[in-house]
Order: sequence, then C-alpha cells, then structure tokens
Amino acid sequence: MDLKTFIRDVYDFPKKGIVFKDITTLLLHAGAFGEAIRMLCEPYLDRPVDLIVGIESRGFIFGGAMARELGCGFVPARKPGKLPAETVREEYTLEYGNDAVEIHADAIRRGMNVLVVDDLLATGGTAAATIRLVGKLGGMVTGAAFLIELGFLKGRDRLGDTPLHVLMNFESE
Amino acid sequence: MDLKTFIRDVYDFPKKGIVFKDITTLLLHAGAFGEAIRMLCEPYLDRPVDLIVGIESRGFIFGGAMARELGCGFVPARKPGKLPAETVREEYTLEYGNDAVEIHADAIRRGMNVLVVDDLLATGGTAAATIRLVGKLGGMVTGAAFLIELGFLKGRDRLGDTPLHVLMNFESE
Repeated sequence: MDLKTFIRDVYDFPKKGIVFKDITTLLLHAGAFGEAIRMLCEPYLDRPVDLIVGIESRGFIFGGAMARELGCGFVPARKPGKLPAETVREEYTLEYGNDAVEIHADAIRRGMNVLVVDDLLATGGTAAATIRLVGKLGGMVTGAAFLIELGFLKGRDRLGDTPLHVLMNFESE
Repeated sequence: MDLKTFIRDVYDFPKKGIVFKDITTLLLHAGAFGEAIRMLCEPYLDRPVDLIVGIESRGFIFGGAMARELGCGFVPARKPGKLPAETVREEYTLEYGNDAVEIHADAIRRGMNVLVVDDLLATGGTAAATIRLVGKLGGMVTGAAFLIELGFLKGRDRLGDTPLHVLMNFESE
C-alpha cells in the first residue's frame, strides 16, 4: 500500500504560496490509517516504550492509536495554558516570533523510555522543544516518529541524535 | 478496574470556582488507557461503524485509538479555520457568545455509519453541533461515546435521540 497516495495537496493553505499536506484523506480510509499506525509502531515493538508524547493536535490522533497499539501510556504536549495542572514549558522560534509547548511536570518519571509522535516533521521547532521537555523531566527519548517529513525544511537537523522514524518524505513542495 | 480513580480533580481551572476533571492521569497509565479504549469500543464491536468523528482536541486521542481498534476511518471535527479543504460548519452557543465546529465537506458520504467521540460530555454544545454536521452530510449517527459525563450539566438533553455510551458519570462537582 503506497500511503503517499492518500495524502492530499491543498494549495494556498494556511497562506498563499504554501502547499499543505492534508492527512485527513489518509485518516478517512480505514485500511490506510491502520497500515500507517502499524508501520509507525513497527520499530518499537521489541523495544521498551513506557510513554508516547503526542504533539497537539494531529499528533494526538496518531499518538493515541500508537499508545493503544504498543500498550503504553500517553502524554499530551500542548500549547501554553491548555493543561490544567503544573507544567514545564519550552519555547521555540518560528519564522516570525516565538511559540511554546508544555507538558505536565508529573507526567514523566526519571528513566522512563519516551517516544515523541507527531503527524508532520516540518521545521522541527515543536518536536525539538518537546524532546527538550522530556529530557528536562529525566525521560530518555527512545525516538521520534512522524507520518510525514518535509525534507526540504531540514527539520531533522534540529533534533540532534534522536533516532527518527518517518513513513514518507517529501523532498520538495 | 475503577477508571474513576485515574481522573484527577484540578481546582480553579480554567477559571476560579471550576473543578476540572483532568484525564491526563488516566492517559499516563497504560492499563487504564487500554481499558478505557476497550470499554469505549465494546458496544460497537458487532455494529457497523464506517467512521469515527473525533472532536478537537482530546477527542482525537480517544477517537484515534478507537478507530484503530474498530478498524474504521477517522474524521477530525475542528475549530474554525484549522481544516485545509472545503468544510461545513455548525455554530453553537456558549455561556457567553458563540463558537463553531467544522468538518471537511467530503469527509462523510451519504449513508455512512458514524460514531461521534469526545473525552467529556459537559453542556453538549460541541457534540450536538458535530452530530448536526454528520447529518448535514447525509451520515447516520450510530451513537456518541464519551469517557466522562458531567451529568449535572444535562448535556445529554441537547443530543436528542442519539444513543450515548459513557464510561463514567459525575453527578456533582
């Protein structure tokens, strides 16, 4: 099954000149979604994963399904102010300005094996900040898994030596 | 396993006087999360479900895992402006003002059996709007499933004759 054929290009979203990779057409298709979850989980079947950290909000769809598949817990990484209890926060730079991501301060215990999950690796800012958050709380980042990598944005250069697992790479828009 | 014991009360979130039911403590625990997904899916194992519509954003975590478990597709119901292609929209009233929810116009085909999923049934505004959206596109709402119902907010009164499946009910704050 060629999962790339289930991704839809949407032109000029979220702004003029951008070609947006729409994953909802893959989610819609039971067989493609199931295959994506199976393939995303495959490298981790024989490795200890205690927690998946899923990045808001499309990372919740993949991360939730993967946590069930791998039999591990799930931690949401969210935009500031969304989580109710005490959080730790990491900022990161965007093209214009800054943004930040938070997880609950008691979500990860020292030495836990953590897998970071999102749908898309673009510039890598959110993923890099999430990986730093896991480290701040003493977690070991086993890897980071993405459905799609936009290779031309070189996001993987920001993720240091974290082992990456990517199902499809787009080398140009 | 008493899933209620995994829910954490957070006081004064998102504002003074509110007791927030924090589900992240359940998600963290692999056994509790797995049991919640299994129990949420149970009534639908022998009924046709073509699609799960998960409501942004905590509904994505449960809906994604349930779609994988039931072997069906997944459709995100999102806040306005987040979905890239053509959408249909339904507005609903909040305590102060209005909000809206959208799904892609081509996400649901006439006659499809659709299950609506969210973590929490509170006042029922978003869930009711989502159910109307499914109907607008010709889908049949098989049911709506929630981890938690805040019974004292009477949200189920807004959901008409949609069959509801709820794992835990809180009758008071």
